Amino acid sequence: MDKGKVLLSVSGFNPQRWHELLAAGREVVTKPDGPGDPSIAYAVVWKQPPSILAGLPNLKAIFSIGAGVDHILADPTVPDVPIVRVVADNLARHMTEYVVWRVLDHHRFGPSYQAQQKRKIWRELPQRTASDVSVGVMGLGSLGRDAARALLSLGFRVNGWSRSERRVEGVTTFAGDAGLRPFLNATDILVVLLPLTEATRGIVDYGLLKELRKRNGLGGAVLINAGRGRLQKDDDILRALDDGTLKEASLDVFEVEPLPKTSPLWTHPRVFVTPHAAATSDPDHLVAPMLAQMEAHDRGEPLRDLVDRQAGY
Amino acid sequence: MDKGKVLLSVSGFNPQRWHELLAAGREVVTKPDGPGDPSIAYAVVWKQPPSILAGLPNLKAIFSIGAGVDHILADPTVPDVPIVRVVADNLARHMTEYVVWRVLDHHRFGPSYQAQQKRKIWRELPQRTASDVSVGVMGLGSLGRDAARALLSLGFRVNGWSRSERRVEGVTTFAGDAGLRPFLNATDILVVLLPLTEATRGIVDYGLLKELRKRNGLGGAVLINAGRGRLQKDDDILRALDDGTLKEASLDVFEVEPLPKTSPLWTHPRVFVTPHAAATSDPDHLVAPMLAQMEAHDRGEPLRDLVDRQAGY
Ligand SMILES: NC(=O)c1ccc[n+]([C@@H]2O[C@H](COP(=O)([O-])OP(=O)(O)OC[C@H]3O[C@@H](n4cnc5c(N)ncnc54)[C@H](OP(=O)(O)O)[C@@H]3O)[C@@H](O)[C@H]2O)c1
Ligand SMILES: NC(=O)c1ccc[n+]([C@@H]2O[C@H](COP(=O)([O-])OP(=O)(O)OC[C@H]3O[C@@H](n4cnc5c(N)ncnc54)[C@H](OP(=O)(O)O)[C@@H]3O)[C@@H](O)[C@H]2O)c1
Repeated sequence: MDKGKVLLSVSGFNPQRWHELLAAGREVVTKPDGPGDPSIAYAVVWKQPPSILAGLPNLKAIFSIGAGVDHILADPTVPDVPIVRVVADNLARHMTEYVVWRVLDHHRFGPSYQAQQKRKIWRELPQRTASDVSVGVMGLGSLGRDAARALLSLGFRVNGWSRSERRVEGVTTFAGDAGLRPFLNATDILVVLLPLTEATRGIVDYGLLKELRKRNGLGGAVLINAGRGRLQKDDDILRALDDGTLKEASLDVFEVEPLPKTSPLWTHPRVFVTPHAAATSDPDHLVAPMLAQMEAHDRGEPLRDLVDRQAGY
Repeated sequence: MDKGKVLLSVSGFNPQRWHELLAAGREVVTKPDGPGDPSIAYAVVWKQPPSILAGLPNLKAIFSIGAGVDHILADPTVPDVPIVRVVADNLARHMTEYVVWRVLDHHRFGPSYQAQQKRKIWRELPQRTASDVSVGVMGLGSLGRDAARALLSLGFRVNGWSRSERRVEGVTTFAGDAGLRPFLNATDILVVLLPLTEATRGIVDYGLLKELRKRNGLGGAVLINAGRGRLQKDDDILRALDDGTLKEASLDVFEVEPLPKTSPLWTHPRVFVTPHAAATSDPDHLVAPMLAQMEAHDRGEPLRDLVDRQAGY
């Protein structure tokens, strides 16, 4: 019997390399052959067009091209088959690079030194010790835990927040709604690595930013968001920057992406913008394990890295 | 018997905190009481005025306020007593932060993303994997080794170069003049953490930069110097930046400090300038062990972290 086909359905980027690599293992199509196409067994998707997955009678599982699956679940017609997300060392290492890079840039006064350089000012700024600074990681999943470990090894104090109680060696952990305020109150630099769900949408608002610790010598709290844009309220971040609640922010994600040219975030002197590039899914690392999971599933073995649809991540 | 006094002799910064903390242990003076002052037993110095240490009959040891001692030995009248330099976890951790910060900024296309942000360009740049990038650390001393370990834990390949053969787990090591060219040829990002000596003065010149590896996809080699300014030739760095030998540089040290306003390095778009602030000696961490060494030496115990005057570091 022929292997079922893979439907590769992507928007917002060119999936050529994904196509090539998937095609080495299975026949790949980019559209169903009419409604109810029975030849499709698996879908590999990133922000698929609405309804494209509905009514495929032999669809066995959906593979997300990213670690997050909000882009899939945004479409209410997505059929009730297992969804596999990306959990990969490679992705975590890239995200950890981004987090360490941005934390150090704020910790080491990168923006201030650049401003001084522009004015040819030779002046040493106060040197803080990492162990006096608490980085709070929102989301202790595969990415948050890896980033936390790297921050610990550089000497930072690390707090973590998750839905269920988690233990991560060296990290002071907080959980659930009751744990949020104490977590924020003990955090100088906030790193957001949450999934976007019903429960987390818009969580990074002015009220939350107000709860961050403000200490003399640090010059205000810092926000780093590499989770999803709709976790945050762009306008609230601007307000917090402008009234001194926040000193600086590094944002990889935005409510609307690409970030509209009209957004004041582009030109804010204390905001560092990257184009949702903190950790990109690399087909050269991810396609082989995806194909292997499809083979294993065809043999009746269980899928790994499944999404809990109830929880939304 | 009274303890011998400490001569605290510093130029270029305000040593008030050093004074306070040293004075908790011993009487501190900032000048000898006339030539041949017999009351001075120890000197604590940073770029001391010429000849101030000469002819002190009871001087037992000189303590450098920094890890490097070129600022002391630049004065040929410095008496032949033991010189103790700074070796401290705290200093190494600060230097490692600086090195990791700058390596990640170049690796993650910080300058390019900032240039894009200025023009409101939303475009993802190619994402390299740390394990495809070799960072070469010149100088595998207390600072170089700590930085190497942190870079390894982020996934970079690390090469190291030293005078004598060194083994550092996970690092590909090279030694001496014969090892320099192969070290450079295998290095994409060069991190200079050498001491300034007769043998190393001006070592970072155009010819050396030309030997760095140039690979497709990386967009050129990168120089990071946090050792000493006179290890490098500022003009050669500018030439290398302008002819494409170097892609970018992060410089914490310069031939002349403070960097003169006339230097084109201030305004070069691919140079990141910090004011010799990569790792500052912190009196709150360093004075107590200095006082303890003086006490121990008075009891006849050996001094630690001694400089080899012949080698110059
Ligand atoms: N910017 C980028 O380039 C990029 C790249 C990759 C991923 N991402 C984002 O990063 C997110 C995290 O990825 P991951 O692999 O680490 O996810 P994950 O393994 O599913 O971990 C998610 C973490 O968030 C916590 N969480 C979820 N809902 C919560 C709530 N309501 N309250 C408190 N904590 C909650 C979870 O708590 P429990 O531990 O209790 O389950 C878990 O610790 C992805 O969902 C994606 O949005 C961004
Ligand atoms: N920018 C700042 O804020 C800042 C702060 C602190 C220190 N520094 C600088 O950093 C330097 C290094 O500090 P450290 O504590 O790591 O010094 P260290 O422990 O003395 O180590 C020096 C390293 O350089 C190597 N080396 C010396 N001369 C060499 C030569 N001619 N050829 C090849 N390798 C040579 C040594 O080789 P061996 O291992 O064979 O001896 C050793 O590995 C200091 O001297 C200072 O100039 C700068």
